[in-house]
Amino acid sequence: MSTVPASHIAARIGAELRGADVPLTRVSPLSKAGPDSLSFLASARYRAALSETRAGAVIVKAKDADRAPCAVLVVENPELAFAEAVSVLHPRPVPQPGVHPSAVVHASARLDASASVGPLCVIEADVELGAGVELGPHCVVGAGSSIGPDSRLVGNVMVCSGSIIGARALLHPGAVIGREGFGFARDGDRWVRVPQVGRVRLGNDVEVGANSAVDRGAIEDTVIGDGVKIDSLIQIGHNVSIGEHTAMAACSGISGSTRIGRRCTIAGAVGMAGHLEIGDDVHFTGMAMVTRSQTVPGVYSSGIPAMPNADWRHTIARLKRLDALSDRVKQLEATVRALDAARDGADNEEGADNEEQVLDREQDQP
Amino acid sequence: MSTVPASHIAARIGAELRGADVPLTRVSPLSKAGPDSLSFLASARYRAALSETRAGAVIVKAKDADRAPCAVLVVENPELAFAEAVSVLHPRPVPQPGVHPSAVVHASARLDASASVGPLCVIEADVELGAGVELGPHCVVGAGSSIGPDSRLVGNVMVCSGSIIGARALLHPGAVIGREGFGFARDGDRWVRVPQVGRVRLGNDVEVGANSAVDRGAIEDTVIGDGVKIDSLIQIGHNVSIGEHTAMAACSGISGSTRIGRRCTIAGAVGMAGHLEIGDDVHFTGMAMVTRSQTVPGVYSSGIPAMPNADWRHTIARLKRLDALSDRVKQLEATVRALDAARDGADNEEGADNEEQVLDREQDQP
Amino acid sequence: MSTVPASHIAARIGAELRGADVPLTRVSPLSKAGPDSLSFLASARYRAALSETRAGAVIVKAKDADRAPCAVLVVENPELAFAEAVSVLHPRPVPQPGVHPSAVVHASARLDASASVGPLCVIEADVELGAGVELGPHCVVGAGSSIGPDSRLVGNVMVCSGSIIGARALLHPGAVIGREGFGFARDGDRWVRVPQVGRVRLGNDVEVGANSAVDRGAIEDTVIGDGVKIDSLIQIGHNVSIGEHTAMAACSGISGSTRIGRRCTIAGAVGMAGHLEIGDDVHFTGMAMVTRSQTVPGVYSSGIPAMPNADWRHTIARLKRLDALSDRVKQLEATVRALDAARDGADNEEGADNEEQVLDREQDQP
Repeated sequence: MSTVPASHIAARIGAELRGADVPLTRVSPLSKAGPDSLSFLASARYRAALSETRAGAVIVKAKDADRAPCAVLVVENPELAFAEAVSVLHPRPVPQPGVHPSAVVHASARLDASASVGPLCVIEADVELGAGVELGPHCVVGAGSSIGPDSRLVGNVMVCSGSIIGARALLHPGAVIGREGFGFARDGDRWVRVPQVGRVRLGNDVEVGANSAVDRGAIEDTVIGDGVKIDSLIQIGHNVSIGEHTAMAACSGISGSTRIGRRCTIAGAVGMAGHLEIGDDVHFTGMAMVTRSQTVPGVYSSGIPAMPNADWRHTIARLKRLDALSDRVKQLEATVRALDAARDGADNEEGADNEEQVLDREQDQP
Repeated sequence: MSTVPASHIAARIGAELRGADVPLTRVSPLSKAGPDSLSFLASARYRAALSETRAGAVIVKAKDADRAPCAVLVVENPELAFAEAVSVLHPRPVPQPGVHPSAVVHASARLDASASVGPLCVIEADVELGAGVELGPHCVVGAGSSIGPDSRLVGNVMVCSGSIIGARALLHPGAVIGREGFGFARDGDRWVRVPQVGRVRLGNDVEVGANSAVDRGAIEDTVIGDGVKIDSLIQIGHNVSIGEHTAMAACSGISGSTRIGRRCTIAGAVGMAGHLEIGDDVHFTGMAMVTRSQTVPGVYSSGIPAMPNADWRHTIARLKRLDALSDRVKQLEATVRALDAARDGADNEEGADNEEQVLDREQDQP
Repeated sequence: MSTVPASHIAARIGAELRGADVPLTRVSPLSKAGPDSLSFLASARYRAALSETRAGAVIVKAKDADRAPCAVLVVENPELAFAEAVSVLHPRPVPQPGVHPSAVVHASARLDASASVGPLCVIEADVELGAGVELGPHCVVGAGSSIGPDSRLVGNVMVCSGSIIGARALLHPGAVIGREGFGFARDGDRWVRVPQVGRVRLGNDVEVGANSAVDRGAIEDTVIGDGVKIDSLIQIGHNVSIGEHTAMAACSGISGSTRIGRRCTIAGAVGMAGHLEIGDDVHFTGMAMVTRSQTVPGVYSSGIPAMPNADWRHTIARLKRLDALSDRVKQLEATVRALDAARDGADNEEGADNEEQVLDREQDQP
């Protein structure tokens, strides 16, 4: 654990330091901080915690600076500044460049001298690893793949042959990039595999979570744009394309050939059918079932929130009887229409009577 | 990139070549093809693209042959023929037989001389690998397992002890075959693991996708029939059985002891409860929630498609008030019944009045 | 296959043996047992199978003992006793202590002499492995992690740096413990990763299934309580906490910072939003969509069970027209109110007439 003065962090994150230049050793939440802690306030919700924190220093917006009982680092975007500050206080150990002796590296692979290849990795023929690439233990990079500068494969990552990965990728354990996707032709009852000869191309700054899979294209490529963040346990089908800076939470699945725009957010456990067009700035809430293209920016949702089981059974039963309910309403409408008509008829008859009476009177006129 | 004459491909796929014997080097979609491309038309949707393609040759049905501005390879099932043609133009590199020196192979394992074991694989005791079996890097085959001829474990596949895998299997990275499933006995608040001593048996031509898991049986075996295709990120519980040629798309889960018939299709993210019976030729659409046995062939569905968030909130609110709506309809029915009865009563009273009037008149008759 | 006398098993499971001390070699379901099989009856559903079984011995409750046509082992909890008996008849081969020569172990790691490290494992700096720890092939234990006594990592398990794992853990293939979770700050359109510096702490007797991921905490720790059972293909987000003896079935996802109580059960494919509070003894049925905190013990559900596709289309259409139906009911209510008022008015007019008549009569009174 190293000690970093608040002023040093202020310089790194471009903050104005107000108060003492306290020595800091760690980041902590406001409510659990101590005098050696750096904390931050990103949401008004936690203002009460700010005024009671025992942190040594806190990253805040200018408007909150006076609430803090400690040194403050004033910035415009505390969350972003905090992200940087964490890496100052808790730097990730960077491995030595070079190839671990237990790794299996094909003679034709081109590894930048600054790249680091961990124990028991496998690097196949014609692979290219850029400057600063870091492969943790047990990674496999398939033949002909290239990985851009400063990308990090945490460990146990499988990059299948021919994949193209940009700079600063972060691929988590169990991620599978470039699997041959689910493409079959029918031959009577049998399914016959269609060889998948497209590739996966990941842009720069792409992240793929633990045990997620991005399938290679069938003929053309599967394309993941710059800055796309894919969480864990996500399946991306063949020929999908995802636009820049779209983020997807865990447990979602995108079927083949669907195209997703830029700056979308896809919450957890969303399922998307294939061959859809999803526009820019489209957002799906958790467990949404996406069966149609959505090109208008906005938030889309589906699913029934969990409720007590008895209520749910009741609701499902009602839902199944919606048809019957609708029929009853239709029947009521007919009956009421008849009643209404009868009343109008009665009114009209009265009117008719009056008219008759008038006529009668006229006739009665001598 | 090798060059293959169209006539050679025609011979391989049993097609009639009409037009020039063009040299081909690759497969392409109709709309992105060049003179060295082979393409195909499988769906009437793409007929417009066919007439405008710049492909060198196209695989088509006889009825579409005249629409193509290039050489055609005429077959009955273009998709199936294309699957074969892809492998002619883009043959997968086949590894040398033999065991990579970095692999760890138990002395008691029986490996066919034509089998190929990749770097850093682990083959435990009493394993049997058939002719032409191909293990990519980082595969583990547990003690006593057998893998049939021409099966391919792409890489990083885990086959747990005692698994039986048929011929021509294709197991994708991260697949876990034969995990000890989720079986517990209760001991007060505690869950006590019930040892899982059944096996997994995969038939011939079975495929298991990336990061999918097929659990071993508890006492008896989990059985996956011939030709079953299991996509990525799928969980198959213990003692499940799946009939021949059933296909399952990604992100689905099948709970323990459920039996699924033959030729079923299960779309993405379907969840099935345990101990169900699903008949032959039953099809589930995406995200279906399967809580009951379904033995009648047909298509089954559930789930609410995503809609704009405001509409969804409205719909959910309405759904929660379905009971109230139903009560209001019941109340209306009672009121309308009363009104109707009143009207009938009024009619009857009018009748009575008339009768009385008649009587009155009669009485009035002098 | 070894032979074990029924009396030996009775002693191990604390059962009373009634009948012959038959030699047993295996466990079987009641309906498929032979004279060398041990079976059990845990549910009244299978009583018919009990009376017809050909098993050599059956574990039963006292009240069912007379139904068995064979030797019985009488206990209070047959399922629990069976779990123990399975391990007597089918003991799991226990590996030799020591480190496989192909494993890569850092010099600073502290391994108990009774621990077993399988082929091609990677043990990083400052790792601690307790007595009886068993690592199957291809496991990685990251720097500074500790694994408690008698824990078993089946194979291909990734434990990321700094993870703390209690005693008797069972981690299945593909499990990823301590991944850096999905935490980002926004910088305009870009997502900037917030370094995740918390840890994962698993209590004692915790199980994590195949290809499941438990993310490390962002600042504080992700905490999984004693006896928690996590099935396959599950994602646990950063800073989640799960109370003792809670069990989760496959394909579920828990978003970050959600706190789940003790003794909960979470069925398959459940999705939980982040920052929720789930109390003790709360149970969710399969595919439940959990968007709100639930602190009252009980069963919670959501989702529409699958139905024939035509019915489903009809139901969804009705659901979308619920607003219209509700409006129609509102309209009906207005009309019926008007009709009712008209009838009441008629009644009132009659009454008024009567009053007038009365008045008239009074006036008529001479």
